[in-house]
Amino acid sequence: MTRPLKIYLAGPEVFLPDAAALGVAKKALCVTHGFEGLFPFDGEAAPQSGTRLDLVIYRADVALMREADLGIFNLTPFRGVSADVGTAFELGMFAGLGKPSFAYTNDPVDLLGRVRRIGILAQDAIGAWRDQQSISVEDFGSADNLMLEMTLAEQGRAIVRHSAAPDRLFADLTGFEACLRQAAEALVRRS
Amino acid sequence: MTRPLKIYLAGPEVFLPDAAALGVAKKALCVTHGFEGLFPFDGEAAPQSGTRLDLVIYRADVALMREADLGIFNLTPFRGVSADVGTAFELGMFAGLGKPSFAYTNDPVDLLGRVRRIGILAQDAIGAWRDQQSISVEDFGSADNLMLEMTLAEQGRAIVRHSAAPDRLFADLTGFEACLRQAAEALVRRS
Repeated sequence: MTRPLKIYLAGPEVFLPDAAALGVAKKALCVTHGFEGLFPFDGEAAPQSGTRLDLVIYRADVALMREADLGIFNLTPFRGVSADVGTAFELGMFAGLGKPSFAYTNDPVDLLGRVRRIGILAQDAIGAWRDQQSISVEDFGSADNLMLEMTLAEQGRAIVRHSAAPDRLFADLTGFEACLRQAAEALVRRS
Repeated sequence: MTRPLKIYLAGPEVFLPDAAALGVAKKALCVTHGFEGLFPFDGEAAPQSGTRLDLVIYRADVALMREADLGIFNLTPFRGVSADVGTAFELGMFAGLGKPSFAYTNDPVDLLGRVRRIGILAQDAIGAWRDQQSISVEDFGSADNLMLEMTLAEQGRAIVRHSAAPDRLFADLTGFEACLRQAAEALVRRS
């Protein structure tokens, strides 16, 4: 029997007080679906003499991404209308590495709707929505910036959207499990 | 004589009303410094029958990134405390592709300072800063999330920080020119 495929578990939950417990929960769900999960904290070595801690963390996370066969990305909006930029960076890295990616968000509203929450929008002469600084807002009905949604579309899927309770915005794993099922369908049964 | 190196010009200015003019200005500066600039709009073909427009745009941008020898990323905070997620995705893609990247921000304040602008922070028992949702805030003195700052550090440089006037937050090209000088120093004189 071959080893289980390894999933890089990307998302802003590393910043939560219960990050370690969430990592354990995600890894347990990975096993249930026939995978092995790699949580960013796994690789975080103790501070190394002579190397700044943020660089140690970066290198550990990059090593896990290179080790992983696929990634599941939590794109739930983080301190604003869009996903955590660290997670967006990692999704881009997977695109560059040519590795399969799956993604979910716990806010079901599309990007246009979320930008509308923070300010009044108006349509310009050609019908594009613009915010109060005249900066345009994508109106593709997508969960976030088109680069994030379309890297999934190129792989035949969409960002999974789930409506989580506000106090479970980052802890709700319904969308994460949906990604695991997508991954099992796309990758495991084929092999 | 060899051809000039090609620079992918990433940033949220594609969403500005004067996006095309900014693209022209950036490309002119590229030529001044011995490069050729590739602006995301360059590749944006007309809508193609049978393919959704956001996917057409994604494919055009990815093709430009694959064509480019290096990238310059505008990481100025966009609709919140962090960089545009589309630009962060692209910076990650460059890391995955192993291509050199350079970056600037027109807000000189570090990430911790910007999060402090939007809410009160408190230190937890181990001294980590947390926001009012108890979500931790990186305190590395960096311009943004460590994945963005450290992908530059791995290449021996930092995100260039410049203090632009508020009404020129995305249009000020001082930091962009500093990146061009870095790139010329790092890449052109070596070849």
